[in-house]
This record gives sequence, structure tokens and C-alpha cells, in this order.
Amino acid sequence: MLRVIFLLSFLLTLSNAAVQDFCVANLKHADTPSGYPCIRPINVKATDFVFTGLSTPGNTSSIINAAVTPAFVAQFPGVNGLGLSIARLDLAPKGVIPMHTHPGASEILYVLDGCITAGFVSSSNAVYVQTLKAGQVMVFPQGLLHFQTNAGASTAAAIVSFSSPNPGLQILDFALFANGLPTELVAATTFLDAAQIKKLKGVLGGTG
Amino acid sequence: MLRVIFLLSFLLTLSNAAVQDFCVANLKHADTPSGYPCIRPINVKATDFVFTGLSTPGNTSSIINAAVTPAFVAQFPGVNGLGLSIARLDLAPKGVIPMHTHPGASEILYVLDGCITAGFVSSSNAVYVQTLKAGQVMVFPQGLLHFQTNAGASTAAAIVSFSSPNPGLQILDFALFANGLPTELVAATTFLDAAQIKKLKGVLGGTG
Amino acid sequence: MLRVIFLLSFLLTLSNAAVQDFCVANLKHADTPSGYPCIRPINVKATDFVFTGLSTPGNTSSIINAAVTPAFVAQFPGVNGLGLSIARLDLAPKGVIPMHTHPGASEILYVLDGCITAGFVSSSNAVYVQTLKAGQVMVFPQGLLHFQTNAGASTAAAIVSFSSPNPGLQILDFALFANGLPTELVAATTFLDAAQIKKLKGVLGGTG
Amino acid sequence: MLRVIFLLSFLLTLSNAAVQDFCVANLKHADTPSGYPCIRPINVKATDFVFTGLSTPGNTSSIINAAVTPAFVAQFPGVNGLGLSIARLDLAPKGVIPMHTHPGASEILYVLDGCITAGFVSSSNAVYVQTLKAGQVMVFPQGLLHFQTNAGASTAAAIVSFSSPNPGLQILDFALFANGLPTELVAATTFLDAAQIKKLKGVLGGTG
Amino acid sequence: MLRVIFLLSFLLTLSNAAVQDFCVANLKHADTPSGYPCIRPINVKATDFVFTGLSTPGNTSSIINAAVTPAFVAQFPGVNGLGLSIARLDLAPKGVIPMHTHPGASEILYVLDGCITAGFVSSSNAVYVQTLKAGQVMVFPQGLLHFQTNAGASTAAAIVSFSSPNPGLQILDFALFANGLPTELVAATTFLDAAQIKKLKGVLGGTG
Amino acid sequence: MLRVIFLLSFLLTLSNAAVQDFCVANLKHADTPSGYPCIRPINVKATDFVFTGLSTPGNTSSIINAAVTPAFVAQFPGVNGLGLSIARLDLAPKGVIPMHTHPGASEILYVLDGCITAGFVSSSNAVYVQTLKAGQVMVFPQGLLHFQTNAGASTAAAIVSFSSPNPGLQILDFALFANGLPTELVAATTFLDAAQIKKLKGVLGGTG
Repeated sequence: MLRVIFLLSFLLTLSNAAVQDFCVANLKHADTPSGYPCIRPINVKATDFVFTGLSTPGNTSSIINAAVTPAFVAQFPGVNGLGLSIARLDLAPKGVIPMHTHPGASEILYVLDGCITAGFVSSSNAVYVQTLKAGQVMVFPQGLLHFQTNAGASTAAAIVSFSSPNPGLQILDFALFANGLPTELVAATTFLDAAQIKKLKGVLGGTG
Repeated sequence: MLRVIFLLSFLLTLSNAAVQDFCVANLKHADTPSGYPCIRPINVKATDFVFTGLSTPGNTSSIINAAVTPAFVAQFPGVNGLGLSIARLDLAPKGVIPMHTHPGASEILYVLDGCITAGFVSSSNAVYVQTLKAGQVMVFPQGLLHFQTNAGASTAAAIVSFSSPNPGLQILDFALFANGLPTELVAATTFLDAAQIKKLKGVLGGTG
Repeated sequence: MLRVIFLLSFLLTLSNAAVQDFCVANLKHADTPSGYPCIRPINVKATDFVFTGLSTPGNTSSIINAAVTPAFVAQFPGVNGLGLSIARLDLAPKGVIPMHTHPGASEILYVLDGCITAGFVSSSNAVYVQTLKAGQVMVFPQGLLHFQTNAGASTAAAIVSFSSPNPGLQILDFALFANGLPTELVAATTFLDAAQIKKLKGVLGGTG
Repeated sequence: MLRVIFLLSFLLTLSNAAVQDFCVANLKHADTPSGYPCIRPINVKATDFVFTGLSTPGNTSSIINAAVTPAFVAQFPGVNGLGLSIARLDLAPKGVIPMHTHPGASEILYVLDGCITAGFVSSSNAVYVQTLKAGQVMVFPQGLLHFQTNAGASTAAAIVSFSSPNPGLQILDFALFANGLPTELVAATTFLDAAQIKKLKGVLGGTG
Repeated sequence: MLRVIFLLSFLLTLSNAAVQDFCVANLKHADTPSGYPCIRPINVKATDFVFTGLSTPGNTSSIINAAVTPAFVAQFPGVNGLGLSIARLDLAPKGVIPMHTHPGASEILYVLDGCITAGFVSSSNAVYVQTLKAGQVMVFPQGLLHFQTNAGASTAAAIVSFSSPNPGLQILDFALFANGLPTELVAATTFLDAAQIKKLKGVLGGTG
Repeated sequence: MLRVIFLLSFLLTLSNAAVQDFCVANLKHADTPSGYPCIRPINVKATDFVFTGLSTPGNTSSIINAAVTPAFVAQFPGVNGLGLSIARLDLAPKGVIPMHTHPGASEILYVLDGCITAGFVSSSNAVYVQTLKAGQVMVFPQGLLHFQTNAGASTAAAIVSFSSPNPGLQILDFALFANGLPTELVAATTFLDAAQIKKLKGVLGGTG
């Protein structure tokens, strides 16, 4: 019995030293460059480290016949400060995850089902494209334009992980055509024809 | 035509500026604290960013009825310098990924098939255990002891990603019982009985 | 005199401790995820820390009526490992630095001459555009699409600094239209019309 | 006099620029992934950078005949954000700092008094053990299992520093036996016999 | 129309994932080791990324005939978390930016006007000095003593960028002579004569 | 027996995954911004992690009556890539570690013997000085000017640890007076009198 008491007092002393193995995000507070302030450890439960939103396919009945379901820090506070996050891609036949970048993270993709053609373009404009079968993995270096398309006749799905809890996601078409960036400015900085720009602004709800 | 020439010269100038979007590892050279030296970009192919070794289950006919198939930088040189890596877990019925740590990375797990009970212990000795179904995700903070066990009657599998291309993997039993660390030193530093230590050294091929 | 001797021996002892205040790149060796191996300190000269290539305007007689002159690690080995680099932008009247990203760095711009309209688009597709006069500064967060255009009738110029010695530079049009990425793949992942894509591939020397 | 005024105005201008040389932790606020919010510089005193709790030996009259006295950020707010911390080890004869890891830091040990056998095990299960005399130094790489034992007949003591203000400390026995992790789960994931587990749970106050 | 609706719902889903492309500082809150908490993205305006305070020369009518105008995070909250900042140097004839260090950043200097002699000293006490003309660039490695002086007969100016939003600025003379550090302590730790110290304390308003 | 074979094959598979728990420096090769290339793990011995050079006092019979004995990466290759290093200070009566900075690391000091007055100056020129007894600890934030002096009548000694394997060490007097930096340049950038400068150049072996 004495041993237990001695040990427990030793344990308590040491436990004082054990702060922040993790930092579950308190999303109600303002974030910082390194992430959100932490919930107090005493209030953290096992379920804070679990995310169930990727277990069913996303709704692919959109214009792109595809869906991205993120589990970034905003959806999954348990990844705050841990240097990674995850998402699920679903692609119906003809589905496409359009050309996009993650400003703050590299990405690694594992094909769950179906067949996916994926690729990225380097700063030197070299193209790296591969068609992947279920179980294959592809990595996309940080910040480069990349895409995924369904390369088969059936539904495809993938799990993608990121090297940041907050990778960001900039979809090229939305950045160019789904806001108020004036047509002439888009034209001047992309060499696209004004008619093409106006057409896509129309589809995507952009103005200007 | 002139426009093309002008643009290409502009392009060439800028391409000079575009070094190291990625750094595919040259495993023949000594690594550094930040990773391996890079293969020259001119020699990099799309397949350098693809890994196919996770597409089939690992061999689970070992004592743990489970297998870990890593795609770390040593197996998948394309992840060098990109801040992430991936692996596959396969668990036959009664399969166990024994208690272990990754000294240099956090881990995020996605259940592919079956049902997995997973958990970790914090520095404060709090236990976070959950039983996960296919499609569920759990995150394990860097450096903490954790495990995964098959919680169902059928085969289970999972994809795990890491926040480092070189997460490391220290399996508790191998660290204690599969080398020449003397029994009395193990006993003194773990409070395990000498008989228990010798028994496990016998199973795991340890000496001393 | 004895004092000098004592001090010098003290000095020599301490100098042993003084490794790598800097790491001038040896560009002949393969780089690593953290940058190039260092030239030996004994061979480093003051001029290794000086770059003269930004003192005159770049040649703006290209299709974009503009020029980017980088002093990244590939041009200026002295910045290796120091966490920053610099470049010069020159824009003739109607000149444009087209929509682009730096995958690995934030950018800060100081207008030397003239008047520049600059902007970036966030992951949430919000547009941040400003017209800047000489002496004004604008910052562009890492990895986001941005551009600069001459907003006046005379020549404009700017100095831009980066939060990395190797910021990368991905120009949207070159990534989409100046390589062999097949037209149908560009169309599928950008929603641009095939005719528009072929037209720009023609201008920029792309194939496929 | 005029000079002083000029200089002081210059000084004041520049002082505006000088934020956060340090960030003494405000432990009353929630921490973030990078550490605690800072106390306002105006309220920081020289004593905030001083810690006196390591000047006397810790109480070694516990079951391990040893004591760990940490000066991590929770005990010594002055180290917040500075990338290091310190602790003191005291080992009575037969004293042992049991097998443990620091999930977020490397450790460097300096023997103050006596003779200490210390060691760590690598991911490849290689064992690195040395017996150290007063004044000798040993380094323990981040996240690996390691231990220290008194190798002499007299009291031993050491100072250990860490590469983080918040290194964490996970003691193997406490993680396995001092909480409610069920015996069968410990058995399944460590291959220890249930009787051994129950015995140590009894000593350490664990349940389940 | 339906397409727009589908796309917008897709867009909204993804926008949830897009947190913190940037982190404009809320200077009213306490900072953290990684910087200040962020203003809510909804309240961020384009002008938050623009700084106008460097467009006119600083007042050089001080004892040093020079001025430093910083745009660090305290003056320019838009750089918070972005890994860089900027400042302007103005040097009247005979102007000097005295010997100083930036404890937390490297610096890159671009000469706007005039002629500047700049230099730094390494840990090995090697001296790297160059005289720079307008348009030339020099880089100063992190934490080393450096200086800039007007090398011509006319006014000189430069833009300097830093590898941190909060580089710090420690001016040697102010550190030694503009505070209450006792003369005998300065003398003992610098080998300067007490008379010299007292003289400079007199000029710079120091006491002790 | 079969179990052992199964387990060993499992072990071998996993060992492939276990690269670089540590990176003992190969000092014969050029270093990189992240440190030196690693010795092959197979050639690493336990003694590579041990340093014995701090066990005896340094020679304090120099002009400063003190000695600094570093165990940085150049002396102790085992700390390469581990984010920390260590050194020993010895101060005879009247001994002084003169005003200096570490450009790349914070420092934490533990007094072994005697009584030490230590202090640092912030960017805002605030002075933080304390007199420390044996067993007391003081921390010095990265890059700031600081010093240690013997505050007692007997010998003093301290152990100092750093948040980098390569902290650098710039001693103010050596930087100003022990090289060829011209007297007029020192005078112009420090406001010291030429006579004072020449006097110290004479003592320290400087020229110019």
C-alpha cells in the first residue's frame, strides 16, 4: 500500500510536467498562425480524436459529378497542431475533382475503389500524370496545380491525407470565375478570351 | 510565331527560378536531418510519385495475425521532403498491431474494412480507446504509445498516414525483448518479473 | 603580448564552435529538402552575399510586356538556408505578371516606380485587389493565385521578397497550355472550351 | 542635450519594431500548438527567466528510489516559445528512472554526481547503453524509449535538457499499468501475461 | 440555373474547408510564440495587406543622420504568420545604421538610391563588407552583427526584407549604453574603458 | 520456434521502415542548412552519443579568467539533427564570459558551482540581470546580447544547453576588435572613440 502511495505521489509530480501531448481545437476562439487554442485536457474525450464523416460517399450529383469531404481542423478539431488531416474524394462516372492547389500542404492519395487518373504540373511546367487502380498511392507536392478524374465506368473513391491540419484548397475555376474579379482583369492575367470568362462566370455565379 | 518565341524565352528565364518543387530521394546517398539528397529533376518520372505496394493485403500469418506495410521514404522515395507518408495495416481475426510509437510523426487512420479497436495513452496516462467501423477515422498524436486490434470476426484493414516521410516505428515488445538488453536491466527499468522477460525474449529471439 | 596569445588561443577554441552562420550553396551538388550543401566557409567571399542582377530592368519586350528577374537560390547561392530570396518585376505600359502562385513562400512587394494593380484570391474565393503607387507595399499569402498589372501609362517596377530561398513559381497559363497536358484533360479539369485551350496552346507552344 | 533628444526619438521609433524577443507564458490562458500566449513585455521581470526548483535534490524515497524534477513550461513559464527546457534527476542507490519517452523532444544529459547507466533503444531495436561518470554527457534522440539507473553505491544526480519547452514524458509502466486500460487489452497488445499485468496494476493503482 | 445551384452548394461545402490562408494580426490580443491571434476572415479587407508607411523617406535629422522605418507585424498586421516583413532605411550624407542584430531573422537589402557600404561579421569573426550601388542586393545571415553606412555624398535609401514577421532589432549601442546596465558590468563584459562607457551613456541617456 | 521465425520476418519487414531515428554527423562531408549528412546507422556506436569533454574544467588562465568548452555538432557529432547541444562554462575569480550572442539558439544555464551574475538585454533595451547560486537556472532568449560573470570569490562553473546543435557564438569584442574591420568603420557604426577601438584592437590582435 505504501508503495502505491509513494508511486502515486511520484506520478502526480511527473504529470505536472506532461502538458499538451495534443491540442484539440477550441473553434470558438480566434486561431493563431500555429492553429487554434486548445480545449483543456480534462475536457478531451476519446471521441474528439475520431471522425465519422468520411464513412459514406459524398453527394456526387453536382456539375462535377464528384464530391470532396474534408476532415480538416474546421471539421475535425482533433487534428489541430498535429501536422496532418484527411479528406475523402468521390467521383461518379465522368466525375472530376477540378484543377486545384493546397497552398499549405502536400497530399497523398490512396484509391479506395475504381480507377482514377490523377496528375500535377511542376513549376517547370512538367506534367506528371498517372492512372491509378484501387490500392495504389500517389503523392502531390505542396502548392502545385493538380487534379483527379474518374478513369473508369464505375464510381471511384479515394482517401487523401495532407501534411497540415489546415491545408487550404483553392479551386482554379472558383478562384477565377466564382467571384467579382472583373472580366477584363481575368482576361489580362490569364489570356483567356472575355467570352470564355463570361461564360464560366455565368455557370459559376461570378460577377464583374 | 514571334509571340511564341518571346513567350518561350520568358518561360525559360522563369524556369531557371523553379527549383525543387519536390525532392525525390536518392537513396544511394547518405541522408541528412531533413531527408535524402534529391534525384535531378530531369530524371524524375511520374511513376516516382506512385506507390503500388499497398494494393494487396500484407501477409498476416505471423504471431500477431497482422501485417504493417510501410510506404515511408525508404520504400517510397517520392515522399522525401514532402512532410508525409503512408502505410497499410492488415489484421486477420484476432490480429493485433502491438503497442508502439512513432518517434517523429502523428498518425491518422482510416478503416478500409472490418472493425478495429484502437487507442493511445497520453503523457498523463489517460486512455483514449475507440472501436471503429469501416470508413471511420482516428488520429494518434506524435510519439505516444498506441495500438490497433481487430475487433471483429472477419479480416480488417486500414490505411494510416503520417506527418513525416520518415515517422519511425518503435514496437514496445521488440524494443524490450528482441535484442540484447540484459534481463536485469529490463527488469530494473520496467518492473517486469525476470521470468516474464525471459519468456518473451525466448519468443522474440532476444538474448541477455 | 601574452594577453594577445592567451586571447587568441581562447578565440581559436571558440571558433571551433562556430559552424554555419550561413550556408552558401554549392550548386554543383544535389540539393536536399532543406537546400543545397554548403561551400566551405574558408572559400566564402563577401561577394557571395551580393547580387547585382536586379540593378537594371528586365527585358519587357515579350508578349506580356513584362519581365520577372529572380534572385532565388539557383541564381543567388548566398540565400541558401537563410529563409528568404528576392526578385524584380518590370512592367512596360500594359505589362502584366500573369496569374501565378509560389508553392513554397509568401511574397511582399514594394513598388519602385509607376503604378501597379495587384491582387490575390483566397481559398474562399474572396478577391483582394489594390492599386499601389511607388513606395507602397503589399503582401501575398503563401500558395495563393495572384497577379500584378501595370496600372499606369508609364513603366512600372517592383521589388518582391519571399519567405524562402526557393519559393517556386507556377504560372497558370504555362502550367495549363505550355506543355503536353492533353486538351481533353485540361478541358475536363478546368471547364474551359477545347477551342480556347487549343488557341492558347498554339500561342504558348503547348502540344496535345 | 539635443543629441539625446534626437536619439531618444529614434530609439522610441525603433522600439516599436521590437516585439517578442521572448514570450513568457501566461498559464492562465489556453495554450496553442506553439505554446501559451505571452505575458505583456511590460510585466516581465528578470526573475521570470530564473528557476530555482532544481537547486536541491528531489525526494527519492519512492518505489523507484529516484525523482524527476521538471522545469518545463508548466513549471517555468520563461521557457515558453524558446525551444528548450530542463529538469533534474536524482537517483538514490538502486534508483531508477524507468523506461520512458519524450514524445516531442530530444534530451541531453549531464551527470552532476555519481555514476549513471543510461541507454536507449532505436526503431531498429538496437541498444545503445553507456555507464557515465560525473561530467559526462549523453544524448537521447527524440521519441525513443530510454532509461537511467544509478550505477554506483552512492547517490547520483543529473541535469537533463530538452529541445522543446514542452517535451512531454510518457513512463512506460504508468502508461500500461496505472490507468484503466483493460488487462486483456494490455495483454493482447504487449504479449505480457495477465498475471504480470494484474500484479503491476496492483502496485501502480491501475484498474481493469 | 440548376448547374449554378449545384455548383454553389459544392462551393459552400468546400469553403468550409478553407480556413486560414492568412492570419491578419489582432494586435489587441496577447501574442503567442507563433504570432498574434487572427482577425476573423470576414472582417479582413484588401487594405489589411497593404502598407503605405514606406513611401516617403524617414526623418534623418537624428544623431545618426539616418532612419529605420519598420513594417513588422506591430506596424503591419497583415504579415502575421506569413514568415516575412519589410522596412525602409534612409541615410542622409554621413548617415549610419549602427551595428545591430535581428535575433530572429535573416535580412535581404535592395539599394533604392545612392551608395551604401554594408557589412556583417561572422561567428568566426570574418568580415564581409561591400559597397553597393542602386539596384544591388546584399543578404545578412540571421542573428549576426551588421551595419549600413552611406558611402556617397548624396542621400541613400534601401528596402530591407526579413525572414520573419517579427525579426527583432537589437542596436548594439542602445543595448550597452541606453539603459541602466551598470558601467562596471558593461566594462567587465566588453573590456571598454569606463570613461568611454560613461561618455556614451551620457549621449544616449543611459544611467548606472 | 516457428513463432520466432514468423516474428523475426515480421520484425525485418518493419525494420525496413525504421530510418533515421538519429543522424550522427559525418563531419567529412559538406553540411547542409539542416545539418551534416548522417553516418550509416550500421556504423553508429553507443559512444557516438556520449561526450566526455565537459567533465573537467576548461583552462581559465586567459585574459578573461574564464573558459567556454562547447559540445556543438562540430565537437559532438551525435547531436546532429537533434535540435540541441551543450557546453560548459568555467569562471575563475573575476572571470567573465564577455557580452555575446548565439545567432541561432536560445540558451538555458544551470550553475554547477559558485555564484554567477548573468544577464541579457532585450530588443527594447530592457536589462534582465540576476545573480545565481549553485543549482539555479536562467534562460536566455535567442539572438540577444548576454553575459556571465563570476559573482563570488571562488571558482564558478555552469552547464549551458542550446536549442540547436549549431547555436553559433558571436563574441562582441572579437567581432569588433579581433579582425580587419577598419577602425573608422567600427567608430562610425558604434560611436566608440578611435582611441578606444585601437586600444582593443591592440589587445585582441585586430588590424585596420
